[in-house]
Amino acid sequence: MKFHGVLETCLYVDDLFAAEQFYQSILKLDFVSRQEDRHVFFRCGNQMVLIFKTQASNAVDSPLPRHGTEGAGHIAFAAQAHEIDTWISQLKSYGVPLEQIMAWPDGARSVYFRDPAKNCIEIAESRIWGISE
Amino acid sequence: MKFHGVLETCLYVDDLFAAEQFYQSILKLDFVSRQEDRHVFFRCGNQMVLIFKTQASNAVDSPLPRHGTEGAGHIAFAAQAHEIDTWISQLKSYGVPLEQIMAWPDGARSVYFRDPAKNCIEIAESRIWGISE
Repeated sequence: MKFHGVLETCLYVDDLFAAEQFYQSILKLDFVSRQEDRHVFFRCGNQMVLIFKTQASNAVDSPLPRHGTEGAGHIAFAAQAHEIDTWISQLKSYGVPLEQIMAWPDGARSVYFRDPAKNCIEIAESRIWGISE
Repeated sequence: MKFHGVLETCLYVDDLFAAEQFYQSILKLDFVSRQEDRHVFFRCGNQMVLIFKTQASNAVDSPLPRHGTEGAGHIAFAAQAHEIDTWISQLKSYGVPLEQIMAWPDGARSVYFRDPAKNCIEIAESRIWGISE
């Protein structure tokens, strides 16, 4: 028995408003819901991206198991080869500094940048992992 | 233009050996590669689960953008309704304490437990998010 995939990926931020703007307006994730001062949730393909304020998801009175991190997390989003250049242009047009553009041994590329909370965000071709979409 | 999904989800641990045993032997993720004292990588469906030692992925001499967190992260894996009970039995048989079993408003369930680094791990039906597999 195997899992069908990853369902929820989490990142932690200090400013939920800035995160919502960034992930919705620039990265075009589908907004699902928000709870003020606690979280904002997005859908991306068949996965969820859950963005929390660490103090809230880690609160002692949380009704669900506590979690929350400090420091820069990392997530990568899947894009096709021909879309990478468009994403690069789009990030630049929004004034998002690109931290690195990586050419992997098989010719696939990924681009790295930061969200407003300094999490390390990557847009990559799935084939860097031998995964065909 | 939208992402096709989440490609990489990261967790951070202090003990890579314990993590590898846990994710491979108990959670049945597909082992992809390891780099001693830095990371162990798994595939899960069409996504990657990347497990790092924070000190290594956040090292100043890293050839890739730095990232790394302290504290309990969170990930959820997708399972079908009929598989949830089997997973619960399997976790118990491995002596993994269950922290919470949640029945969501639509009748879907998820189960929470901890990995050896105390990250908050969930196995959930995708329909808790209105996602059909």
